[in-house]
Amino acid sequence: MPHTTHFDVAIVGGGIAGLAVAWRAQQRGLRTVVLERDQLAHGATRVAAGMLAPISEARVGERGLLALSRASLDRYPAFVNELAEASGRDFGYSACGTLLVARDRDEAEALERELVEREAMGLPVERLLPSEARRREPALAPTLRLALDVPTDHAIDPRALSAALATAVEHASGVLREGAEVERIVMSDDTERVAGVELRAPGERGSGGTGASIAGARAAGERIGADQVVIAAGAWADQLDGLPTHARVPVRPVKGQIMRLRDPAGPGLLTRTIRMQPGYLVPRGDGRYVLGATMEEQGFDTAPTAGGVFELLRDAIELVPGVSELQIEEVAAGLRPGTPDNAPVLGPGAIPGLQWAAGCFRHGILLAPIVADALAAALAGEPLPAAAQPFGAARFAPTTPPTREAVPL
Amino acid sequence: MPHTTHFDVAIVGGGIAGLAVAWRAQQRGLRTVVLERDQLAHGATRVAAGMLAPISEARVGERGLLALSRASLDRYPAFVNELAEASGRDFGYSACGTLLVARDRDEAEALERELVEREAMGLPVERLLPSEARRREPALAPTLRLALDVPTDHAIDPRALSAALATAVEHASGVLREGAEVERIVMSDDTERVAGVELRAPGERGSGGTGASIAGARAAGERIGADQVVIAAGAWADQLDGLPTHARVPVRPVKGQIMRLRDPAGPGLLTRTIRMQPGYLVPRGDGRYVLGATMEEQGFDTAPTAGGVFELLRDAIELVPGVSELQIEEVAAGLRPGTPDNAPVLGPGAIPGLQWAAGCFRHGILLAPIVADALAAALAGEPLPAAAQPFGAARFAPTTPPTREAVPL
Repeated sequence: MPHTTHFDVAIVGGGIAGLAVAWRAQQRGLRTVVLERDQLAHGATRVAAGMLAPISEARVGERGLLALSRASLDRYPAFVNELAEASGRDFGYSACGTLLVARDRDEAEALERELVEREAMGLPVERLLPSEARRREPALAPTLRLALDVPTDHAIDPRALSAALATAVEHASGVLREGAEVERIVMSDDTERVAGVELRAPGERGSGGTGASIAGARAAGERIGADQVVIAAGAWADQLDGLPTHARVPVRPVKGQIMRLRDPAGPGLLTRTIRMQPGYLVPRGDGRYVLGATMEEQGFDTAPTAGGVFELLRDAIELVPGVSELQIEEVAAGLRPGTPDNAPVLGPGAIPGLQWAAGCFRHGILLAPIVADALAAALAGEPLPAAAQPFGAARFAPTTPPTREAVPL
Repeated sequence: MPHTTHFDVAIVGGGIAGLAVAWRAQQRGLRTVVLERDQLAHGATRVAAGMLAPISEARVGERGLLALSRASLDRYPAFVNELAEASGRDFGYSACGTLLVARDRDEAEALERELVEREAMGLPVERLLPSEARRREPALAPTLRLALDVPTDHAIDPRALSAALATAVEHASGVLREGAEVERIVMSDDTERVAGVELRAPGERGSGGTGASIAGARAAGERIGADQVVIAAGAWADQLDGLPTHARVPVRPVKGQIMRLRDPAGPGLLTRTIRMQPGYLVPRGDGRYVLGATMEEQGFDTAPTAGGVFELLRDAIELVPGVSELQIEEVAAGLRPGTPDNAPVLGPGAIPGLQWAAGCFRHGILLAPIVADALAAALAGEPLPAAAQPFGAARFAPTTPPTREAVPL
């Protein structure tokens, strides 16, 4: 393996964002490499439920994020069709719809408020009495108090989707490297722009999320030259060495525990995604379900806990008693990448050649098409799509950015 | 590999019983082979919590089983010492004691009755008020109503124990074969006695617990000759072909789901085994805990379920709230072997050369020393130890055993 190579674009992180950006960048004729510390799509992507649910997730005061999410959902059908053709892979895009449910008076009142908010935003939501909700989803418990039907919120299998993306990247002659942990961003000699990345040397201890390295004890790692570097490193996006402070974007990990369940009797228990307060149950259509997810801020810990799993199961079984009979296939946790405003950071950074595809928080799967299109435009020097423009890195810049002239001695 | 081999003893099943019997048999100079369909100690042994708790488990009307259990517990210290020396392995034998706890009035009344029963049997049990129970185990919830302390009921790690047994068997020149599934017991030409076993042919479909094979489509498997055959096949003990009906013993699988938990803060949450109604939480002494177990009769299914795990966690977290913070290392299920009276079947069967070390139900780890000694005696033609004598196979014999003369045409 050569110790110096050069690409048009080096992407740090091989999750859903990095893979989608790589595919679109290759389509634009940019020679692209994806550098993944672990295995492709084995971080948050692997644990994600794959809800494509901008309306269920809509929050007052986040109109910009709602517009971005809806723009991405609009792109999904064409994205999926094109990807299926490019990859030769079939993967589930389930137009299943979503039910938001309330099991007691407090939750019902909260749901009524959510209905009013969504109607005020002109979103397609239908209020259902319990009898009608249970007619549509007979597995719901009789204790149900109220439900909202959101027929346009769907789901997709993130593992199948990311596998197809990886295949499409390779078919488009992009380079995918697993076990390639980027330790730092390399600047040009005059520090005017990004010049590439340096990998952690083989045998060096992984950062485990701290990014710290012991000065003097570090072996030199492989360098990969690149005209532009895209940071698509999920919860680890702020852990890379080499960037000056004013060019960094704060990203923190937000742990989510999930369970993958399987109905030995096959599909049919649920056809729609069920959203509870605060969890969800997403049918895969083949008798498999994803039950999620906790929200915990405790660093880079990804161990499932007794308390987390207990709460997931308690809520799901109360609302859908038949969940009791499902087999447990997997218990896992992942780390959502959260910026200070929990919205993504997309496009050019504070240094020429630096690009962000990061901070997608709970929405990484939903946002993949628009993130990919936005970054492909940015990498080609074009403006971002309108919906993505509010999400630039500049909003996180220090209020008094340091300049070379102004630094006090 | 030779297609005909001969041993003094062939043991069907490489769980705790088969391994312990093999060790004792080799020590008696009997050339022994252990035939395990899967991996050694990967059935019920792997899932067992390892409670050595005859007094906690004592039930009125099961005095014979209590005597057998206590006789086995009496043998444990010497068994463990000898095994540590023979294997060169260290493994945990934790004299931790056991607390039986009640969290509401109904459970407290049941516990009072258990106290009376145990005192009537002369067993060492101490009644504790909640304050004293929580002084001894501060992690117990304030809602605790009553506890019984059983200081002589201990625990051991079944995985470490069975690994040590496997090493000891090999040090004693016994033969261990994994992936060797016994399909049937082979009788002598005159059908007067057992002559060995036949393995399932490579590539043949495993029984999956049904023991069925398609007549005419079955390839001949390897034969292993043996003067005596010990059935130590756990829940599969009644699934072997070749035995006449009157020589069979009914054994059914009783599913138990468990969780293996780990405290990231290290040991200290609990020092004693906690027994709830109906679960238990066994500390391993190193910050690890086993939480078990469901009791389900539904065939050979070993999938953990949402409902099973939910109930385990609900009870444990209610009684020991700190369990919430424990990490989940494993969720698994195993199959306890249950006879019609849920007591073991030990020693000679209805056919010369046939021996049983089966049906240990919830007590396989506790009973290992006495089962091994009993079978070693039986294989040498000696009488069983007194405590084991009530557990012969004859109690399951058909009331009118068929004889060759009496079979109607």
